[in-house]
Amino acid sequence: MEKPTLPKGTRDFGPAQMAKRQFILENIKKVFQKYGFQPLETPAMENLTTLTGKYGEEGDQLLFKILNSGDFLKDVNIQKLESKNSRAITFDISEKGLRYDLTVPFARYVVMNRNEIAFPFRRYQIQPVWRADRPQKGRYREFYQCDADVVGTDSLLCEAEIVLMIKEVFKGLGIQDYSIKINHRGILSGLAELCEAKGNEASLFVAIDKLDKIGEEKVKEELTTRNFSDASLKTLFEILNFKGTTQQKIEFLSAKFSKTPTGQKGIADLKEVLGLISDYGANEDHVEFDIALARGLSYYTGCIFEVKINNVSIGSVSGGGRYDNLTGVFGLPGVSGVGFSFGVDRLYDAMEELKLFPQEAQISTQVLITHFDAESKRYGLKVLQKFRENGIASEIYPDAVKIQKQLDFANKKLIPYTVVIGSEEVKSGVLAFKNMKTGEQQKKSPEDIIRLINPNNQ
Amino acid sequence: MEKPTLPKGTRDFGPAQMAKRQFILENIKKVFQKYGFQPLETPAMENLTTLTGKYGEEGDQLLFKILNSGDFLKDVNIQKLESKNSRAITFDISEKGLRYDLTVPFARYVVMNRNEIAFPFRRYQIQPVWRADRPQKGRYREFYQCDADVVGTDSLLCEAEIVLMIKEVFKGLGIQDYSIKINHRGILSGLAELCEAKGNEASLFVAIDKLDKIGEEKVKEELTTRNFSDASLKTLFEILNFKGTTQQKIEFLSAKFSKTPTGQKGIADLKEVLGLISDYGANEDHVEFDIALARGLSYYTGCIFEVKINNVSIGSVSGGGRYDNLTGVFGLPGVSGVGFSFGVDRLYDAMEELKLFPQEAQISTQVLITHFDAESKRYGLKVLQKFRENGIASEIYPDAVKIQKQLDFANKKLIPYTVVIGSEEVKSGVLAFKNMKTGEQQKKSPEDIIRLINPNNQ
Repeated sequence: MEKPTLPKGTRDFGPAQMAKRQFILENIKKVFQKYGFQPLETPAMENLTTLTGKYGEEGDQLLFKILNSGDFLKDVNIQKLESKNSRAITFDISEKGLRYDLTVPFARYVVMNRNEIAFPFRRYQIQPVWRADRPQKGRYREFYQCDADVVGTDSLLCEAEIVLMIKEVFKGLGIQDYSIKINHRGILSGLAELCEAKGNEASLFVAIDKLDKIGEEKVKEELTTRNFSDASLKTLFEILNFKGTTQQKIEFLSAKFSKTPTGQKGIADLKEVLGLISDYGANEDHVEFDIALARGLSYYTGCIFEVKINNVSIGSVSGGGRYDNLTGVFGLPGVSGVGFSFGVDRLYDAMEELKLFPQEAQISTQVLITHFDAESKRYGLKVLQKFRENGIASEIYPDAVKIQKQLDFANKKLIPYTVVIGSEEVKSGVLAFKNMKTGEQQKKSPEDIIRLINPNNQ
Repeated sequence: MEKPTLPKGTRDFGPAQMAKRQFILENIKKVFQKYGFQPLETPAMENLTTLTGKYGEEGDQLLFKILNSGDFLKDVNIQKLESKNSRAITFDISEKGLRYDLTVPFARYVVMNRNEIAFPFRRYQIQPVWRADRPQKGRYREFYQCDADVVGTDSLLCEAEIVLMIKEVFKGLGIQDYSIKINHRGILSGLAELCEAKGNEASLFVAIDKLDKIGEEKVKEELTTRNFSDASLKTLFEILNFKGTTQQKIEFLSAKFSKTPTGQKGIADLKEVLGLISDYGANEDHVEFDIALARGLSYYTGCIFEVKINNVSIGSVSGGGRYDNLTGVFGLPGVSGVGFSFGVDRLYDAMEELKLFPQEAQISTQVLITHFDAESKRYGLKVLQKFRENGIASEIYPDAVKIQKQLDFANKKLIPYTVVIGSEEVKSGVLAFKNMKTGEQQKKSPEDIIRLINPNNQ
């Protein structure tokens, strides 16, 4: 018999990983809810008509497609089949695909439910997405996205709250060394105008987005091949290399943008967002205005964000921005919104690297009841029931085996406490309570143990 | 432009449904965790080699299959294509499928991780499954399953704890009128032996499983066509129609089974489970020994369960049982286990029907801050920050619109309280606090409001 395997690029999440993932997700959910965001879940499968054409040609190739049920070949043109043209036949034998992100399903949901939704609509969504990408370290074919968006308002309060939420999530997770990079599409447009990049903006943005990774010289080379003049590059890097506080950067750019309205609008928005953060009574710690931040997605139209954890191998764990026309593609124009997304896998990896998962988060069962014989085991059931009635996650070893085997089980399952019951304990009602980490053993009543383990009863 | 639609048999879960689903799932999770169960998640896609052959021929047809990526037709035999034999080609163009239940992925996980798992392994798993069934009322192509299993022990403590867990979940959900039906495959085998059904057991079990729905006469007709003699049917219905307490049923059957060892084993197991429930200090309320309970799945070998909520249209919301050889199909024999599953959609529908969802569970944002002008709005931000610092889910209306529109938004989003801020409130620091249900409005300081809304601060 062949050993079972997992499909390439997919993973199981066992109890240890789940505990850590839940620690992250519970933290994020708590913050989302505190800020008025409501949960949404959409189906894994969407019609291909909903999905295709939304992610570029490459994205369409990366969609997982579902084979139609039943006799799927029946109506396929025989010449098409004989030509073995896979691409031409795909849509004849497949009507549905797995969702590629959470943004397009969200847009579809908004359009389909526009009359019931209370706008401005704050929704969060935490679900897996699927991409038929080549798997590699840190890249999976199934992975979780965790999105929060507000649609139906162009108020910059939403941008300010995104910054506050990121700070609060990171505080809860114990992440201290990070930057929330912020920029604005208007500022990028202003920059493009100054560099005379008209009609060539995309090349400019793609190139400067890589500045971090490939450095100034390579970016210059790339832009030169894209017909940017030396004068343009000089202007560009004078701006990109400007060092200073956010305030100084804003002043510097304001002067540069005196003749570019989109640039001015970008600067004005940015100033307002920063002002709002301080109106909330919060500060600008961790917030960094980064003129080189471009982000790939072309649908952003206002502020853009990216969050980077410092001193870890993959630091970029969150990003987002404002878009003016999310639902236009489904026939509902004029719905402005702003959103961001946490990369759960990357957050997980970063927290592992920084050893930030608290040990308590990894404990599931708090106490295991062990027993020497049938009578002790029966006695243990009542103790167990008492523990559970007091909200303590607990279990009894179900089989009659040597005590050492029962204790080994506790260690393997990371259960921090055990109770050992023998005939003496049954007689006295006082139990042998063992701390599995220190090895220390004490005589305690069930009530004492409950008080000790469950802080709510202290 | 065509209006977007959902694939047949799938659903979005908007904020209102999510709140209710989370109420159910959080309740179930809490109980699972208290009983020492640990979470597991497996990928949506499994290799078809893992899935096929596990659910019968009909099940194989109902698997959603994923079209291979890239040039999937390249290596397909051209004659096969020309014959348009969809079934023969399926496995040439598709290697993966969506999971059909949580049991097979769990078995695969256990086999692949047998060396790391601490046995007995208690796992729970709450994830969607997909079936290409014909959609109808209450039947979807994507739906959630919620399973808990213990593998690696044959202790009947596990069966007893399943009963305790179901009772605790239902208590938490507020469901009071229900039965936990319990039976045993050994008892069914004993019954089959008494009815001389050797080689014909499956027909017998299928028929009596329908007794509830189609009645005695139809079951008799069906069994007669299956070659059961009148004498057999007489024996069968003498047993099925026996009325009495669980204790009386057990005594009656013990006598009947004096010569059938499997029947005796069934009775002995059942007695032990009931004895254990009382050893836990719990009672037998809601537990009902039902000799006619058969459950379809052939892999059960010991106790079987089914939970029925009374006086609702679809009452059967949970089922399960013991199996001796879950992982045998993947090459790991001898792993006994017992598990059960909640049907989340059915629980949801039953709770709706019984109006059991508490209104608090449907509230997300607790208070909305509304404002008359820019200055009030700015002032509101600091109030908002204070609310959130005290753990109160709150938001401010982001745009400058008429107060009535802001209040309408609160009503539409079911926000129970609002704060109205105008120039007077900014001056005095005392806010107009409105109960949206009663319409009552009071002057209160932010601190008073925090104490009033958040019971933890009272």
